[in-house]
Amino acid sequence: MRVALAYSGGLDTTVCVRLLQERWGAEVITVCVDVGQDPKDLRQAAERAEKMGVVKHVHIDARDEFVEKYVFRSVKANGNYEGYPLSTALARYPIAAKVVEVAKKEGAEAVAHGCTGKGNDQFRFDITFSLLAPELKVIAPIRELNLDRQKEIEYAEKHGIPVPVRKEKPYSIDENLWGRSIEGGALEDPAKPPPDDIYTLTVSPEKVKKRRRIITIGFEKGVPVSVDGKRMKGVELVQSLNRLAGSYGIGRIELMEDRILGLKARENYEAPAAAVILQAHKALEQTVLTKSELFFKQTVDQLWSDLVYSGFWFDPLKEDLDAFIDSTQKRVTGEVMVELNPGFSRVVGRKSPHSLYEEELVSFEKFGFDQREAASVIKFMSLQSAIARRRESKLAP
Amino acid sequence: MRVALAYSGGLDTTVCVRLLQERWGAEVITVCVDVGQDPKDLRQAAERAEKMGVVKHVHIDARDEFVEKYVFRSVKANGNYEGYPLSTALARYPIAAKVVEVAKKEGAEAVAHGCTGKGNDQFRFDITFSLLAPELKVIAPIRELNLDRQKEIEYAEKHGIPVPVRKEKPYSIDENLWGRSIEGGALEDPAKPPPDDIYTLTVSPEKVKKRRRIITIGFEKGVPVSVDGKRMKGVELVQSLNRLAGSYGIGRIELMEDRILGLKARENYEAPAAAVILQAHKALEQTVLTKSELFFKQTVDQLWSDLVYSGFWFDPLKEDLDAFIDSTQKRVTGEVMVELNPGFSRVVGRKSPHSLYEEELVSFEKFGFDQREAASVIKFMSLQSAIARRRESKLAP
Amino acid sequence: MRVALAYSGGLDTTVCVRLLQERWGAEVITVCVDVGQDPKDLRQAAERAEKMGVVKHVHIDARDEFVEKYVFRSVKANGNYEGYPLSTALARYPIAAKVVEVAKKEGAEAVAHGCTGKGNDQFRFDITFSLLAPELKVIAPIRELNLDRQKEIEYAEKHGIPVPVRKEKPYSIDENLWGRSIEGGALEDPAKPPPDDIYTLTVSPEKVKKRRRIITIGFEKGVPVSVDGKRMKGVELVQSLNRLAGSYGIGRIELMEDRILGLKARENYEAPAAAVILQAHKALEQTVLTKSELFFKQTVDQLWSDLVYSGFWFDPLKEDLDAFIDSTQKRVTGEVMVELNPGFSRVVGRKSPHSLYEEELVSFEKFGFDQREAASVIKFMSLQSAIARRRESKLAP
Amino acid sequence: MRVALAYSGGLDTTVCVRLLQERWGAEVITVCVDVGQDPKDLRQAAERAEKMGVVKHVHIDARDEFVEKYVFRSVKANGNYEGYPLSTALARYPIAAKVVEVAKKEGAEAVAHGCTGKGNDQFRFDITFSLLAPELKVIAPIRELNLDRQKEIEYAEKHGIPVPVRKEKPYSIDENLWGRSIEGGALEDPAKPPPDDIYTLTVSPEKVKKRRRIITIGFEKGVPVSVDGKRMKGVELVQSLNRLAGSYGIGRIELMEDRILGLKARENYEAPAAAVILQAHKALEQTVLTKSELFFKQTVDQLWSDLVYSGFWFDPLKEDLDAFIDSTQKRVTGEVMVELNPGFSRVVGRKSPHSLYEEELVSFEKFGFDQREAASVIKFMSLQSAIARRRESKLAP
Repeated sequence: MRVALAYSGGLDTTVCVRLLQERWGAEVITVCVDVGQDPKDLRQAAERAEKMGVVKHVHIDARDEFVEKYVFRSVKANGNYEGYPLSTALARYPIAAKVVEVAKKEGAEAVAHGCTGKGNDQFRFDITFSLLAPELKVIAPIRELNLDRQKEIEYAEKHGIPVPVRKEKPYSIDENLWGRSIEGGALEDPAKPPPDDIYTLTVSPEKVKKRRRIITIGFEKGVPVSVDGKRMKGVELVQSLNRLAGSYGIGRIELMEDRILGLKARENYEAPAAAVILQAHKALEQTVLTKSELFFKQTVDQLWSDLVYSGFWFDPLKEDLDAFIDSTQKRVTGEVMVELNPGFSRVVGRKSPHSLYEEELVSFEKFGFDQREAASVIKFMSLQSAIARRRESKLAP
Repeated sequence: MRVALAYSGGLDTTVCVRLLQERWGAEVITVCVDVGQDPKDLRQAAERAEKMGVVKHVHIDARDEFVEKYVFRSVKANGNYEGYPLSTALARYPIAAKVVEVAKKEGAEAVAHGCTGKGNDQFRFDITFSLLAPELKVIAPIRELNLDRQKEIEYAEKHGIPVPVRKEKPYSIDENLWGRSIEGGALEDPAKPPPDDIYTLTVSPEKVKKRRRIITIGFEKGVPVSVDGKRMKGVELVQSLNRLAGSYGIGRIELMEDRILGLKARENYEAPAAAVILQAHKALEQTVLTKSELFFKQTVDQLWSDLVYSGFWFDPLKEDLDAFIDSTQKRVTGEVMVELNPGFSRVVGRKSPHSLYEEELVSFEKFGFDQREAASVIKFMSLQSAIARRRESKLAP
Repeated sequence: MRVALAYSGGLDTTVCVRLLQERWGAEVITVCVDVGQDPKDLRQAAERAEKMGVVKHVHIDARDEFVEKYVFRSVKANGNYEGYPLSTALARYPIAAKVVEVAKKEGAEAVAHGCTGKGNDQFRFDITFSLLAPELKVIAPIRELNLDRQKEIEYAEKHGIPVPVRKEKPYSIDENLWGRSIEGGALEDPAKPPPDDIYTLTVSPEKVKKRRRIITIGFEKGVPVSVDGKRMKGVELVQSLNRLAGSYGIGRIELMEDRILGLKARENYEAPAAAVILQAHKALEQTVLTKSELFFKQTVDQLWSDLVYSGFWFDPLKEDLDAFIDSTQKRVTGEVMVELNPGFSRVVGRKSPHSLYEEELVSFEKFGFDQREAASVIKFMSLQSAIARRRESKLAP
Repeated sequence: MRVALAYSGGLDTTVCVRLLQERWGAEVITVCVDVGQDPKDLRQAAERAEKMGVVKHVHIDARDEFVEKYVFRSVKANGNYEGYPLSTALARYPIAAKVVEVAKKEGAEAVAHGCTGKGNDQFRFDITFSLLAPELKVIAPIRELNLDRQKEIEYAEKHGIPVPVRKEKPYSIDENLWGRSIEGGALEDPAKPPPDDIYTLTVSPEKVKKRRRIITIGFEKGVPVSVDGKRMKGVELVQSLNRLAGSYGIGRIELMEDRILGLKARENYEAPAAAVILQAHKALEQTVLTKSELFFKQTVDQLWSDLVYSGFWFDPLKEDLDAFIDSTQKRVTGEVMVELNPGFSRVVGRKSPHSLYEEELVSFEKFGFDQREAASVIKFMSLQSAIARRRESKLAP
């Protein structure tokens, strides 16, 4: 049996290579998808795969696709789950989709991932695998063998698989272009402040020496296309904002998060570009969408984020919501001025050809506004409430 | 005819006193309700009312009631309209309610307010008046005579009413314990960054010399009751957080806001205590409410905020939503650690006897978790999506 | 000034012709749009327009467009406002749109309608006019002159305009292909049962002599395309179901309805084809959409119906919702068996290539279902509720 | 070990008695809760329990509690899941709660139910058990041993447990005061009309010889309290409406239902009293609630029904929704006239001291309505849509 495995080069997935070979008797194809991880990790992954005797190692640069098809679709939806900009969640979909592509191309009968049975990623992999390729078998070796970390390490040592020294890397980390998550160990206690040394993308705000600065982000149909007038491709734009906002210490997030299985967990993230882009996008929406669009879109965005967090990128309802969102974004074109400060950013201005603001005064003239008209509006808006109150006060003893 | 007028001592309401006397032939009772304005303004209001020859000037200290019945109810609802913590909106209700009380006690036939026909406050006054006292006539002199600012000033000068010199106070300002709003003039251009000198409650973050500091806010049933372990009454707690967070430059807000009549307007606020308390409250909710409660409460909170923004504090639906919210807040008791930084605050820890977190590991043991179980959960959660996908791929040409 | 007037030939709009000529000094173009009214009324309209000396009378057969662009879009949205299938509401939009078209073609400066200021139709006309042709002036003579029925009749008699004898037609009636509304007079008392003689499209169920019968309605992408296997165009399909279901006495509706201005009104409708088609459409959706699509689509459909009831067919949010709805309807293709009985219909069967049902057993086999898995699903679905309960019971005194 | 078993006397639960004794070595207490089943079944249950050698058989008449605490709470919520009035679902909660009570009183260490792992009832039992008594072990013998029907029958025959002859009872049936469900066998094919002989509570509409008749149902705070002016206790009221509406053939339901595990199933129900009471309740709500209450309550009711269908009666969110619903029901007092016809009922009138209707005309007079005011309302309601349209048409090429 051939198996295409989503491979990162870390302990979990390297153990999986050997397990698949040994317990499942499989020929393993390792698939390593670049969504903006540390290049060193990617190189290491290739080397390790080699050493483990895989039949093939496939490396795919999916950064453009990740940003343009996944991250920017999430920007349109103000993608945010309980305060989390969905960075890891979003990346799982192109990774899983690429693994399926490789599996089909290479004639594999199964796809595999290295997730445990406790976390969120298993949902994103399992569901994407089953939606995109129902004919392929899904194998999750760690989960199927119910291995815990201790058992994994024992197995790794027994099979000569290099185990990262825990002291150097005491946390579990995931990183891509849209953000970085840091969890585990002491961070799990929701009462303890997270230490400064867990962050690598963001400078500590206390140490930022720069003065505040205003940048301008340009959007077209809900998607960021330029910074300070300089047009950039998605990956470049996100990278440059990660560097710039990160140098201001912007985008640190800590929260209590409801994991898909129902556990609450303390989570820590840093996402400098995401923080700034999402803030600017929302401000532009508030400029060009009608009040009723803004009001209902909050409900749609919340549901969208919940589905994407929970593994349902390729689900019919998620795609129906995309149709709604795309319809709203037709007018989300314009420029937003964002002030970068040590530790935080804030919007300070916006311009758009679709702005519903600039017509204001004109409209008032044109519509021939007489203040007395407002009294009529109020009377009818509150007519039923008034009838109800009057009636109840008469019935009261 | 006797009229009870909501009186602030400013130009609009002082012009109203004379208009009511002259055009309506009314005996005017001025009602000045303290919700945390500048004490100087309150004294000035009493003096001016005297000079205008009112039959009675009533001064009511409603600060406790404002904070405990209105502001803290809004905290439970995470009261927030498009980014605005509803400070002015919330204050209008106790003011209107007190005017009605005075009118009834003093045998007035009418209640009056000084709002124009362009803004939001007329909704809050008109609707509250009509819901609480349908038998009283409502008079809005500025609106009924369709006066604009120029005409008001002419009228004021003709009648010897002191007109504030515009140059000193170029903006229109409203202030109470929950926040301060600054609007008008150059601020109305949504593309121009607001100047630093519009703020009085908050120091400019760039000038803050203090180091970051962690404070602990205690909550009981959704309401803040202590800071750093020191129990305080509502007014004291809000005042002390306004001073403390204000000294860090926390709580400046600028946004595009959809006014009730449908116009978009650029608004500026500062609300240091509100910023910190609302952030902490939400973090505590995320610790003690179930995921499904959190999810649906977002919809309820959004609707609640819209109603309260729009004049409907005493509306039946608003009260139904309160019943829902109160039910959720029974468990919102605990402590939240908030880190104050120059210009921003962030939650860094939380503790609660009702926390759904701390049971986590226990639960996993107790429930006898086997990772393989997760595979079943995923299979059934995505069953229909999988069937739908499979079916469509078979039907595809 | 030239004015294009939405013209029905009834008292209101005929009075408007003369008022526009006399008070506004206008050249009137009457526009009569056929959406399935009684052909006699349409002929009468042309004759009356002639007699009133209009500069032009335009007759437009918009039945195909009405059914295909408006009615069938409403079917996809399960269009229903508080129990009302929106028949009159839907027809107002093509009528208003055609009046705008004529106005532009004929170089008119204004568009006009004959609605009073009390009802719903003024919203649909005013808003559609202002959205489709902001450059045209809108005139609503009855409303602008604040005429009541008595004054209208006086004016009509004075100007030789024929006034319908009230005794023959004691109710106010509106009819089109999607249904008929009957209101006014004794019907307005919500406590009194409506008399049988108000209905013309539906036989009294007590008098139906036929036995029950099963028909099959075919749908493609959410739209009905055939009855009992016979493919029909939209107008023909609706007409034939109106006749058939009407002969069974199906589709009588009485309800309390919240009008747009806030008044509650007792309303009576009959809509035989709408009753059967909407019922069948919903049954098909329940067969092919996922549970989560069905759940959220209820919210979307309700909001869609509210917007369409309230005048917002051409509103941005309404169009965003259409995008969502169209995305869901891609799979709503299949056949529904409906049993017609005297007075009611019910669905008794459905078939679809997109059915999520038929895979059921297969799936269970394929997925290798073991009952014990369900226990895991239940455990995790209720994990947080269980933790919350346990915690509260420990804290309870 | 002592185990309290939810016992019906049917095959599943009787097999469970023996399994618990044999495989779990348990002393079994059978708990039979009367929620309105056939009295013959209840007697048979007692006899069978005796024969099986249980240590104790407990019979509890929970009919009053079922109707007043569960069914009427569902009426307030217009309890309805995809067209199903939740009859079986509602009954599971008092049954499970009583089993817990007995277990605690009798010192049992475990509670048990006879559900398979395929259906919905296991959710309601498991979750209620775990929420009300986390300290008790839950045993589901059929599910834990993964028995299918064939294996159950073999086991029953081996142990001398009487097996119902399938030919007489080809369907799986559940019945209580709120309705009856019929499923299985040929009924499962969603394309085949259900045969008439599955119904026992409802006469075939074709055979009803009675003429239509109007009855009046009285409500107090959302709960039915009288029929035709005769005050009745809950059980009596429901029973008498079951008989009366059943004699008209009212309340037959067939639908495609999304089961909790995600399967779609064709379901058949009959629920005469539920059909009439729910219809009347909704009509009364439309008379006394404000439009905005009605609009949002649809969302709340839908979510409530989903939770109750899915096992979450004792869940925190469900209880929060109850608080909202109870707040709305304070005014749902009045009388509704319902016309019973062969096969269907319809509301034909309503009266209430809280009606928002009867004030209508008065209000209009009192508020001094001038039709021209409506034009202002329309202008502002559509202000943003109009600005958006105008802007887009200018930007269009």
